[in-house]
Amino acid sequence: MNSVLIVGSIAYDDVKTPFGSVKNSLGGSTIYASLSASLFSKAHIVGIVGHDFKKEHVELLRSKNIQLEGLTHDSGLTFHWSGRYEKNMNIRHTLKTELNVFSKFHPTIPLEWKKISYVFLGNIQPEVQLDVLNQLESPKYIILDTMNLYIQSHRKALLKVLKYVNLVVVNDQEAILLTKANNLITAAEKIQLMGPDTVIIKKGEHGAILVNKKNVFVIPALLLKKVIDPTGAGDSFAGGLIGFLAQQGSYDWITLKKAMLIGTVMASFCVQDFSVQGLLKINHKSVHDRWLEFYKTSSFPHFKL
Amino acid sequence: MNSVLIVGSIAYDDVKTPFGSVKNSLGGSTIYASLSASLFSKAHIVGIVGHDFKKEHVELLRSKNIQLEGLTHDSGLTFHWSGRYEKNMNIRHTLKTELNVFSKFHPTIPLEWKKISYVFLGNIQPEVQLDVLNQLESPKYIILDTMNLYIQSHRKALLKVLKYVNLVVVNDQEAILLTKANNLITAAEKIQLMGPDTVIIKKGEHGAILVNKKNVFVIPALLLKKVIDPTGAGDSFAGGLIGFLAQQGSYDWITLKKAMLIGTVMASFCVQDFSVQGLLKINHKSVHDRWLEFYKTSSFPHFKL
Repeated sequence: MNSVLIVGSIAYDDVKTPFGSVKNSLGGSTIYASLSASLFSKAHIVGIVGHDFKKEHVELLRSKNIQLEGLTHDSGLTFHWSGRYEKNMNIRHTLKTELNVFSKFHPTIPLEWKKISYVFLGNIQPEVQLDVLNQLESPKYIILDTMNLYIQSHRKALLKVLKYVNLVVVNDQEAILLTKANNLITAAEKIQLMGPDTVIIKKGEHGAILVNKKNVFVIPALLLKKVIDPTGAGDSFAGGLIGFLAQQGSYDWITLKKAMLIGTVMASFCVQDFSVQGLLKINHKSVHDRWLEFYKTSSFPHFKL
Repeated sequence: MNSVLIVGSIAYDDVKTPFGSVKNSLGGSTIYASLSASLFSKAHIVGIVGHDFKKEHVELLRSKNIQLEGLTHDSGLTFHWSGRYEKNMNIRHTLKTELNVFSKFHPTIPLEWKKISYVFLGNIQPEVQLDVLNQLESPKYIILDTMNLYIQSHRKALLKVLKYVNLVVVNDQEAILLTKANNLITAAEKIQLMGPDTVIIKKGEHGAILVNKKNVFVIPALLLKKVIDPTGAGDSFAGGLIGFLAQQGSYDWITLKKAMLIGTVMASFCVQDFSVQGLLKINHKSVHDRWLEFYKTSSFPHFKL
């Protein structure tokens, strides 16, 4: 199995949605992305956890063949996030963010991992993302996620790390905030001028857009009757993306298109249950079946006018 | 050329968008839908205009081979609508609605038109839509559009006319308002219980969903760098839809899928200029080229996991 390196947050989340709530549930970008990527590649995660991080969660990750030598165990408490979704689940309120051990996160990439070619830099401080890149020997393909906070308050560091990145994954609001563009195509073009030759703009339930200098690929999301908890959808998407690219050992346009479709499939599993439950239930066959369903519902018939 | 019958409003519009404004410009559901349909079929329009309706507009419609024997000329003023779009053009404010002659609209279908098989009932009072249907001899395929006002204040009549309709075209907000569902699939299912075996839910810039009892087809919209004026997009969509179905002489699932794609293409032309200008610039080749572009940017690659 090909390897991917995933760096980001590891968290315990309290989440309330119109369909229920969970407390101290496993979360964080590293967790969602690695569980998603593990369906396609061997995930190597780098992150920090506190003394409260449960043994059962270590075992869970291990059972998915996720490599844990990059995990730092600290004496403090694990990063804790608390949030609530409105009835329109596009609207999320962060109720509490307790960084805890995460404020001391200075990732050290294990020696043998420095040669990993496919890298996902989850949504963390751009200074830390840059620090990770500086430790790598020969990354072939780097995907970066970021958020409003870093676009606004860590802009300089973000612009610096962007120069080294192949693909940026942001949502529509972040793309506009980052570029001040008034439409998504212009935003994608402006992001390309910052370094990455490829951009994905996610539109949540409305799908996603993949853009490079020559091509555009626009897809809807899977239509779901019930979304239980949107937390982690973006990271599951990115995890599927990097995992699939590493599995294919390629990042040409057609492979990127396929990877975005697979990312969309992975996100659809994520949102159908709380925390990481939606990702734990699935296997190669479920992913295959849902991809066929996606193809059936959204592939275009070819015809001439 | 096969025939379509189109009934709806004919208007002069004042429209202001972030990109400019127009006054007394040609508009109304009948106009947008028939101009769009005329690329594929022979459009027969039924509507009412005032003494101020310009001769050049009659000539314009005639030049597109649109049949005008169903046009009533009245001594009052033509229906006048005035609206403004916010920077986020999904938000529209109606500034003024002067029904004028439109309040006296009692459509009479010309004798020879009563045999037309493909019918689009544009967004007008459901009582009037029903009156039209009662005059038809053997409609094969009826598409209906409606709006918030009629869903809320003419619900009984709307539910009555829905029983005779094959396909309903509504936007996402209207679908939710009509059914009180909390997601679009459930909304589509509930609308089917009201009569129509097929439902299209439009999501504006985010695409559209086609649903019948057995199948779902979900597509994005064309990604446009600049939208000048969204007015008439939905009617251009519906016009392309009915025009294409009539041209094909079929309304099986695969033809409906194609028709929705063509409707999306027609809407994309409409929004790129004020009033009907975007629809007037195009011909068979432009539609063909844009369909190819749409196919290129959004058709799925087929692959196995």
